[in-house]
Amino acid sequence: MLQPPPAEPGMREEEVDTPALLLDLDAFEHNLDTMAAILAPTGAKLRAHAKTHKSSVIAGLQIARGAVGQCVQKVAEAEALAWGGIPDILVSNQVVGARKLARLAALARITKVAVCADDAEQVAAIEAAAEAAGVRIPVLVEIDCGAARCGVEPGPPAVALAERIAASRHLRFGGLQSYQGSAQHKRTPEERAAAIGHAAEVTRRTVEQLAQRGLGCDIVGGAGTGTFRLELESGVYTEIQAGSYAFMDADYARNQDPPPFRQSLFVLATVMSRSIPGVCVVDAGHKAVPTDSGLPLVHGRPGLRYASASDEHGKILVEDGATPALGEKLRLTPGHCDPTVDRYDWYVGVRKGRVECLWPVSARGGMA
Amino acid sequence: MLQPPPAEPGMREEEVDTPALLLDLDAFEHNLDTMAAILAPTGAKLRAHAKTHKSSVIAGLQIARGAVGQCVQKVAEAEALAWGGIPDILVSNQVVGARKLARLAALARITKVAVCADDAEQVAAIEAAAEAAGVRIPVLVEIDCGAARCGVEPGPPAVALAERIAASRHLRFGGLQSYQGSAQHKRTPEERAAAIGHAAEVTRRTVEQLAQRGLGCDIVGGAGTGTFRLELESGVYTEIQAGSYAFMDADYARNQDPPPFRQSLFVLATVMSRSIPGVCVVDAGHKAVPTDSGLPLVHGRPGLRYASASDEHGKILVEDGATPALGEKLRLTPGHCDPTVDRYDWYVGVRKGRVECLWPVSARGGMA
Repeated sequence: MLQPPPAEPGMREEEVDTPALLLDLDAFEHNLDTMAAILAPTGAKLRAHAKTHKSSVIAGLQIARGAVGQCVQKVAEAEALAWGGIPDILVSNQVVGARKLARLAALARITKVAVCADDAEQVAAIEAAAEAAGVRIPVLVEIDCGAARCGVEPGPPAVALAERIAASRHLRFGGLQSYQGSAQHKRTPEERAAAIGHAAEVTRRTVEQLAQRGLGCDIVGGAGTGTFRLELESGVYTEIQAGSYAFMDADYARNQDPPPFRQSLFVLATVMSRSIPGVCVVDAGHKAVPTDSGLPLVHGRPGLRYASASDEHGKILVEDGATPALGEKLRLTPGHCDPTVDRYDWYVGVRKGRVECLWPVSARGGMA
Repeated sequence: MLQPPPAEPGMREEEVDTPALLLDLDAFEHNLDTMAAILAPTGAKLRAHAKTHKSSVIAGLQIARGAVGQCVQKVAEAEALAWGGIPDILVSNQVVGARKLARLAALARITKVAVCADDAEQVAAIEAAAEAAGVRIPVLVEIDCGAARCGVEPGPPAVALAERIAASRHLRFGGLQSYQGSAQHKRTPEERAAAIGHAAEVTRRTVEQLAQRGLGCDIVGGAGTGTFRLELESGVYTEIQAGSYAFMDADYARNQDPPPFRQSLFVLATVMSRSIPGVCVVDAGHKAVPTDSGLPLVHGRPGLRYASASDEHGKILVEDGATPALGEKLRLTPGHCDPTVDRYDWYVGVRKGRVECLWPVSARGGMA
């Protein structure tokens, strides 16, 4: 069931019901503007990753600032964006299964949609879905540029797969997907530079080998919030797939030399118990603030330490003696923005202490 | 947006779209029957915890087997159950905030609903909401029986709060809430026995002191799947609040002397890439199977080890050389059942390889 929104425009932030997903609009717009300014003088475009925000409203704001389109990780996200009017979508992932591929092919009639592949069997399945729907689908070859997760080997195996795609009447070779996910949260700039140096080099070599076979890459895509300046410097990537930059989180803040964005995303929580000395308990546990990348921080309150999360309780240690009041609202900075957003049905946009807007998290869940 | 169901009744399990929340109905019914059989000869009743299943359908099946009602952790869960016809609901938690309390009081007109308190200020707020709605709400005193999270101190402070409740024209003293959450996953029977021994002792003492002041406890509630046999043995508790017993999970299975229930809950996932030697990647990452209590297990496939989770990818190491096929479906046993259920809009009930039913996770999310 869709949950009713926890606020109304015009309310003060303290009146918002909790837990709620709060978007600080000033910080959020600063982040969108900053990314647009960084990319403007380069040859690369932003194709922001919607697995982070899951919102056609936010996708539209990114496109209005120059983004060429959006990335998604699955068909349900592509559907939510396409139904929300987003004109150019790349599923930066494998789509496996006849039912999902039929849904993907159906979208190709209302928006520009491309997908990745790392296996010839999968290319044949996409081809069958495209033929059945009477559409032609661009397919990018995903290469393993160092994360050892998905992706065919760079160089000749990638070229062979590209040739298989290009030979199809129902597909079009769309370029390379080369995302080094494991580099994003490496703590030192040196580790990140080494990982992206390798990724860019194998990508460059594959682009050259494709060109030798007459195959041009419309898209050479990759990069995330932790490393995108390195991909830009390499000159190899035509599209940058950062997503977290719009929100940021506690884990990105732990990177040395963190990217130039502000924390805009918070979970608003209420103090619901303070009967144990030195402890206050808020109504946001790990169902409200996932802990896969560490516990949340209490924003602007260095004396309060979020110490443990159970399903619906967050236990906060009061280290400065100033226990918040019962009912007091606290902003929590999530450990990881992506899964946090995915827990909510609504963004509550706030500016200068007032609720300004409510936006649906339109691709929330979207399991299949 | 509510997601469409990933299956239809009659489908084979391999046809279910993924990731999907699978309920093995034979194991699930075994668990419900087993708990009913354990409780039948005791004086205690089951008040199963709906924070685990979030479903009025499952609540109804538990009540049909003798459960006296349901526990929930928040008002949105109480609403979903009340709207689904569940006649007796205890919010086994504090409810803080005027808007939430007004919603709670509104429910008291259509179902029997009680709530907990651990603070006199909060009792006054519940009283005001009850008065405004023209209802009388039973309030239980939550005591801290060892978990040091919420709850007033047992003994005289609990008695004082009970007297405050009993003195109100708009409230009724409902008993004691005494849940030792931190004991549920202690690994050895000895650790669990020590923790529950203490909890039962302070609870018994408080019940006696209340009786001396003429205050009877309709409910003395607590216990979870990891310890409920200990609470039963103590003879102190009138209601058992286990929830996970219906599903079980990988973390409960790690307890020594685990409770006598079968794994009935799974996340069904699809192999979407196998291009890296020794690795297969499934479409269920930590957004689909939360990792707060450890990584999922691959059910029935000891040679496959789920080794890491990113947002939408689960990386599985193939340790026996038998890499699953692209598109193959795997059952994952979640690390923690409660937050896993909360990620899905639908239960897909399966029996003997066929989809038998689809049930909505009607209190999914339910943030406020």
